Amino acid sequence: MWGIIATWSMSLDSLKIAGQMLAAGKTAGETVTTAVKEVENFPFYKSVGYGGLPNENQEVELDAAYMNGDTLAIGAVGALKDFANPVSVAQKLSQEKVNNFLVGPGAEKYASINNFQRKNMLTERAKGFYRQQIQQDSQTKRPYAGHDTVGMVCLDQQGKMTTATSTSGLFMKKAGRVGDSPVAGSGFYVDSQIGGASATGLGEDIMKGCLSYEIVRLMSAGKTPQEACEQAVFHLDQQLRQRRGTAGDLSVVAMDNRGHWGCATNINDFSLVVATQTSPDPIVYVANAVGQHTEIKPASPQWLENYFAARGAAKQ
Amino acid sequence: MWGIIATWSMSLDSLKIAGQMLAAGKTAGETVTTAVKEVENFPFYKSVGYGGLPNENQEVELDAAYMNGDTLAIGAVGALKDFANPVSVAQKLSQEKVNNFLVGPGAEKYASINNFQRKNMLTERAKGFYRQQIQQDSQTKRPYAGHDTVGMVCLDQQGKMTTATSTSGLFMKKAGRVGDSPVAGSGFYVDSQIGGASATGLGEDIMKGCLSYEIVRLMSAGKTPQEACEQAVFHLDQQLRQRRGTAGDLSVVAMDNRGHWGCATNINDFSLVVATQTSPDPIVYVANAVGQHTEIKPASPQWLENYFAARGAAKQ
Repeated sequence: MWGIIATWSMSLDSLKIAGQMLAAGKTAGETVTTAVKEVENFPFYKSVGYGGLPNENQEVELDAAYMNGDTLAIGAVGALKDFANPVSVAQKLSQEKVNNFLVGPGAEKYASINNFQRKNMLTERAKGFYRQQIQQDSQTKRPYAGHDTVGMVCLDQQGKMTTATSTSGLFMKKAGRVGDSPVAGSGFYVDSQIGGASATGLGEDIMKGCLSYEIVRLMSAGKTPQEACEQAVFHLDQQLRQRRGTAGDLSVVAMDNRGHWGCATNINDFSLVVATQTSPDPIVYVANAVGQHTEIKPASPQWLENYFAARGAAKQ
Repeated sequence: MWGIIATWSMSLDSLKIAGQMLAAGKTAGETVTTAVKEVENFPFYKSVGYGGLPNENQEVELDAAYMNGDTLAIGAVGALKDFANPVSVAQKLSQEKVNNFLVGPGAEKYASINNFQRKNMLTERAKGFYRQQIQQDSQTKRPYAGHDTVGMVCLDQQGKMTTATSTSGLFMKKAGRVGDSPVAGSGFYVDSQIGGASATGLGEDIMKGCLSYEIVRLMSAGKTPQEACEQAVFHLDQQLRQRRGTAGDLSVVAMDNRGHWGCATNINDFSLVVATQTSPDPIVYVANAVGQHTEIKPASPQWLENYFAARGAAKQ
């Protein structure tokens, strides 16, 4: 059995490629990195890689991670500037004995020494959003909308599992801000003997509950991926509301080592994409929070039409 | 009941102050930060704050974190240079709505704007160690010894719990390297309704098991702090050996919300310090791995004598 699951509909095209790779016997390591790179390279996704929205200083600072579920090796970068594919740097870091999580100029030095592709990641379109933002008065500002991290969990035919994340983080974030995406156990976690999970939403709140680790732990205790996702998300949501009065966006995807998958969200209209050996054409699902449960439906033709229209629209 | 537990004997003097503060009714937030600052300020501890050993570029880069167990608020800094008290910056960050984890120049900008004390953290003594290191040939180099993070878990008379960590990380680490200390769930985690934990050792391996979160989770499932520490440490140790052939140093301390405490380690001679309402004079314990258990004994007079001799010896 092979399978791959990814946050947000922006992963649809990359999961077509990933599904073909897995069907052809490629490894979970190569596949997940290729798939995340596809999302990083697409210029119209405002929250990942090239075209990602900048921080308060108009700099695109990127977070990414990679984890190998066989060895538990982790690589991660935080606040990385001016490299095309943060996820590839993270994957390379996972192969180092120590120094696996690098941030800022140190991460850039490592990426440079290791010949990763330099790229100015700030697009004209992203500059437009930035200008718009700083011209608005503080009443109408919504600086932290649209933090749609790409996170994937991948299972190959050999039973190896991996996970990878990539994001430009919160729009207008403070310089040097790191979210959950490069934080092991929060933005991602995978163990080939159990399964993996990845999270998207408000990183600062995801970290308060080590959401991805908790989901994998629940699966190891016998929960299905769906049960594990729902239990972890709604427990954390409830704790945050009780203690802080409010909970940020929490959305997760998970897959176990038999290719069964699950997702949960405390928001409306969280989308995800899944491809497995038994259903190799990637399917977009739309998930909505209904009480303490998540209602999951295949995206309607109308929903997909809107998605593809938006995907090509540089002005969006 | 009040209580505080800390990694490593270097915390002994600061726990005397902390115990007095808690006995006088001070909060767990103020107490834990004060205690960690004491350790940061002491120039002869080679792995924390002022006097901490530098990275490969001879720069002292500091990681620290603070967590509030009532609200689950987290503040953390990674790869922070030239500020006297990283833990205070972390505590301040925990009060922000978002942008709670800042790294590198962004973290320094935040610390500067918020008037934290600038300080050149590289001492003459640390420079000596660095020179010694780069003069050694690669055969005899042991670049990653001595990563003794200070981590504390604190319970105040009102039942509030906090945790805080601070470290200069691995000696000769790569620039921008971040360990487990500022990573929520790995280097620290606390929930006032349950208890808290903090870890020290090889950060890269601690992150592979979200060690501090796992300990708190086990306590919430009914384990004593001692049972939780041992189960988490030896499970991760075993997993790492099975999958990677080797496991890095893993040492942890934990306290529950009734002031009961525990510790576990997979090394020899891990020391810790504890003060509680029922035993207010801080006691140094020495812990050793014996099979899948941890043998814990109060430090002998001879052990303490050696400690105090070494503590004052700038040439050590």
